[in-house]
Amino acid sequence: MTGAPSGPPASARLLLSCADRPGIVAAVSSFLEKQGANIFQSDQYSTDPEGGEFFMRVEFHLEGIDDNRDDFERGFADVAGSLGMSWRISYTAQRKRIAIMVSRYDHCLLDLLWRWRRGELDCDIPLVVSNWTDLQADVETFGVQYVHVPVDKDKKAEAEARHLGLFGERFDLIVLARYMQIMSGDFLQAVKTPVINIHHSFLPAFAGADPYARARERGVKLIGATAHYVSEELDAGPIIEQDVSRVTHRDSTETLVGIGRDIERSVLARAVKAHLEDRVIVFGNRTVVF
Amino acid sequence: MTGAPSGPPASARLLLSCADRPGIVAAVSSFLEKQGANIFQSDQYSTDPEGGEFFMRVEFHLEGIDDNRDDFERGFADVAGSLGMSWRISYTAQRKRIAIMVSRYDHCLLDLLWRWRRGELDCDIPLVVSNWTDLQADVETFGVQYVHVPVDKDKKAEAEARHLGLFGERFDLIVLARYMQIMSGDFLQAVKTPVINIHHSFLPAFAGADPYARARERGVKLIGATAHYVSEELDAGPIIEQDVSRVTHRDSTETLVGIGRDIERSVLARAVKAHLEDRVIVFGNRTVVF
Amino acid sequence: MTGAPSGPPASARLLLSCADRPGIVAAVSSFLEKQGANIFQSDQYSTDPEGGEFFMRVEFHLEGIDDNRDDFERGFADVAGSLGMSWRISYTAQRKRIAIMVSRYDHCLLDLLWRWRRGELDCDIPLVVSNWTDLQADVETFGVQYVHVPVDKDKKAEAEARHLGLFGERFDLIVLARYMQIMSGDFLQAVKTPVINIHHSFLPAFAGADPYARARERGVKLIGATAHYVSEELDAGPIIEQDVSRVTHRDSTETLVGIGRDIERSVLARAVKAHLEDRVIVFGNRTVVF
Amino acid sequence: MTGAPSGPPASARLLLSCADRPGIVAAVSSFLEKQGANIFQSDQYSTDPEGGEFFMRVEFHLEGIDDNRDDFERGFADVAGSLGMSWRISYTAQRKRIAIMVSRYDHCLLDLLWRWRRGELDCDIPLVVSNWTDLQADVETFGVQYVHVPVDKDKKAEAEARHLGLFGERFDLIVLARYMQIMSGDFLQAVKTPVINIHHSFLPAFAGADPYARARERGVKLIGATAHYVSEELDAGPIIEQDVSRVTHRDSTETLVGIGRDIERSVLARAVKAHLEDRVIVFGNRTVVF
Repeated sequence: MTGAPSGPPASARLLLSCADRPGIVAAVSSFLEKQGANIFQSDQYSTDPEGGEFFMRVEFHLEGIDDNRDDFERGFADVAGSLGMSWRISYTAQRKRIAIMVSRYDHCLLDLLWRWRRGELDCDIPLVVSNWTDLQADVETFGVQYVHVPVDKDKKAEAEARHLGLFGERFDLIVLARYMQIMSGDFLQAVKTPVINIHHSFLPAFAGADPYARARERGVKLIGATAHYVSEELDAGPIIEQDVSRVTHRDSTETLVGIGRDIERSVLARAVKAHLEDRVIVFGNRTVVF
Repeated sequence: MTGAPSGPPASARLLLSCADRPGIVAAVSSFLEKQGANIFQSDQYSTDPEGGEFFMRVEFHLEGIDDNRDDFERGFADVAGSLGMSWRISYTAQRKRIAIMVSRYDHCLLDLLWRWRRGELDCDIPLVVSNWTDLQADVETFGVQYVHVPVDKDKKAEAEARHLGLFGERFDLIVLARYMQIMSGDFLQAVKTPVINIHHSFLPAFAGADPYARARERGVKLIGATAHYVSEELDAGPIIEQDVSRVTHRDSTETLVGIGRDIERSVLARAVKAHLEDRVIVFGNRTVVF
Repeated sequence: MTGAPSGPPASARLLLSCADRPGIVAAVSSFLEKQGANIFQSDQYSTDPEGGEFFMRVEFHLEGIDDNRDDFERGFADVAGSLGMSWRISYTAQRKRIAIMVSRYDHCLLDLLWRWRRGELDCDIPLVVSNWTDLQADVETFGVQYVHVPVDKDKKAEAEARHLGLFGERFDLIVLARYMQIMSGDFLQAVKTPVINIHHSFLPAFAGADPYARARERGVKLIGATAHYVSEELDAGPIIEQDVSRVTHRDSTETLVGIGRDIERSVLARAVKAHLEDRVIVFGNRTVVF
Repeated sequence: MTGAPSGPPASARLLLSCADRPGIVAAVSSFLEKQGANIFQSDQYSTDPEGGEFFMRVEFHLEGIDDNRDDFERGFADVAGSLGMSWRISYTAQRKRIAIMVSRYDHCLLDLLWRWRRGELDCDIPLVVSNWTDLQADVETFGVQYVHVPVDKDKKAEAEARHLGLFGERFDLIVLARYMQIMSGDFLQAVKTPVINIHHSFLPAFAGADPYARARERGVKLIGATAHYVSEELDAGPIIEQDVSRVTHRDSTETLVGIGRDIERSVLARAVKAHLEDRVIVFGNRTVVF
């Protein structure tokens, strides 16, 4: 999955889905042409041309769109309404805001911060929240605020209330960069923001705790990592990206953990990048990744 | 590169390129909608939204198109003319015809024939031409004609004349499945058919003879194979597909050849499949593979 | 895993395991030197230098060994006894014999037969057994006997009795090349031969039936295949080799099956090759693959 | 290449090569046994059992060896002398010292420093030298000295003299982590330390400047990186490690650079780790990597 660079200013990404039928692409592209837009990337997918679900992502440049978003959206709402579409639009001028949650492992966190500083991730990262203090100095090096929210087993609800307070409605995405706490269903409902987690196995194998030890116990010849949207059921949400690495009988659980770090950080970075570029559409428990 | 299955009957693939400008997608999709077509896959790519070259592939179903190809094409020629497009169309009802050329190695040839028999390659393969007789029995098992055309060093032109006679205008693609003869520029001009070759290295490394021996000599840790359209310059034509496999100091030239066989046959099969599904557009010395 | 070519005649492979302690390598290599052997490959692995289990594979040339096997083995038994070793020896002059079982899918079977014919697999393959007749002509092309043993749901014991009769004690390995029947514990006990199966998922994910459909349902971004020794518990035996391929939302169950075919055949071939070269030692439910 | 963790204290690695002949393994392992050593990893390779070159790496624990290195080495010198061996020994108690050279790209540098901090690289890294000042703050975060040595085109000899002064005889390895200056033959002769470079292509393709731009120009479908020991001829030294990543027509030179960063950093880290664990033996222009 090799992402295109972020579009020029005054550009936007339109994502939509509806029951498949003839004329959808024509309706969308004609509307965009009439507005004066220049489409520079367009992807579509249909689960089945006969009676299936249709998905589309269009990235386009339209001079002045950032001053006329309401007009544009009203206009498109008509098209969408006539075809029964679900849709959303995202403007590249409006950078997404990410909050990262982390416990004590630094590899996914640092990889995201390095990529962000280097310009690989088109977003703002103003906040890292942790149930530990270990990584505070590292995070502050990047000019990012680090907030320590301890999570006591019997006071989880309090911690989650603090999290909700910190996030408010200021974020577009929460990334769990090896955050070793399970989130309650109440929290996930309340937060109203997509949450991406990295799990250290190729799901659905080894969901839950200690996947590397269990991988060694089972004697697998590949280990992996999976980035997915968090849902109430543990490690069962829609998968965005996965990858694996070859291992042998020589690898102890400790060396598996080391090999796994490299997979985890690259899989999480690819998933976050795809989300930031509005390439991911969830449907049912699966994803379309354009 | 995971190909979609061949479309239903009464479907077609339209490939086009032109200078990028607003309105191309709208023009194409509106034309198709007016004809009553249902687009079930559409891909596009622009080298640069400002002044670049635009490429598009649309796969669609249109009831009755196979009885009205001339009308359809006349109609589209108008659209294309107004936008300065180069274009071609391919009907899934009209299976492509492949001729395979081979010398003595069986692995690429058999892999293509197995895949074809199993329905993975949507084409007819009526002819295999070889400068040796070794593989005749294998080929005839598949009900395919095997023609032996010896190639003497000093009578190459005669052999090529026989090849041209055999191919006539009956083929859409010629596949060199480890055919160990260099084709003359005259032949390539005269044959008027795309020719895909598999070269046993990751080009541009180790173009020319004995790539595995040279790979071992250089001490590389990966070997590869490259499928490309044949052009007059040896191993320098547009690349369609490449892949590699990890090797070590333990691998002799002989074991490299064995490892390479697996890469060669899968890379060639993927390239041929992409060509058959009209996914490849050549521009300059590169390819767009949708 | 890139295998060395089969050793020269008059060579052998010694595999052993014992509690780790100092002096094992010295004892084994000194014994071999005194016999006049030249070691050309040696691998060892210890689960833990302190109190762990030690594994070793030595491949050596020894002029005349094939006429003096009993003497050699008696001599080594003394060394082994003094160090409490489990061990076995395999002579390259004595080719292993394989029987293949298959149902209706041809890809794993053809790949094995083709590799065998071209000398990649150092063994004899005198027999293919199937519960269908579909692949008879293909198999006979390779000069291999094809025996049809129908398996009725309610007469499975009869079929297994016929299998045992066919195999007798004439085989060193049975390969299930997509044989779609579950073997009874009684059969596995009685057959006294290792059985390698190819399962069409990356185990432990998607054990059991219909792994490709379940992979699509779960929305994974990688599919895989696993070669393992068959044990009584379904798809739970010691894993020899695994591999995966990247897939996307576009891949239907049918295209997953096609992509999977390529993984299955190469994973199975690598596992069979490792077994034939005596590279695999089972311990507990895991394997050491040297 | 999945490395074993660093051995326990009082352990060492012996590397040797000589003309292949019977008895080498026995001689080495018997010597070690007599000293009371416990071998916990042993690898060997012969280019040809008849008249080839033999290579061996043995990792062993020997209580008290760090107080008796001279005795041990004198003893082994006798064994080595009688078999005509070249050899070297490395003690895990004596950590290797690395100096890193870098220009302005941070990805390889940060990855090495981060792996070092978390204990993946068993070495000291007291010094980073750069011809730019950009990365000074990052490096100092890790508690590592950063020395700025500008390199003027016409005063290269002066800069190299400063480098030699900085390195003295205090280092076991110099790592060029995207250091964008070509070193003179005089410098390489004088420095008397192995130098590992990361080149941003799969060599031998695209040696020299601008490999990503040239890769795009050639239309390859894979890009790669190569870690090699630096020799006088540019990008032509012995290769230690290589890897590739899949790319498409959509990737601009800029996105290739981004994809390449991930390959470069992991390939360089794997090569440095292999060197630190004494797994690499150079012979001719190739490497054995155990």
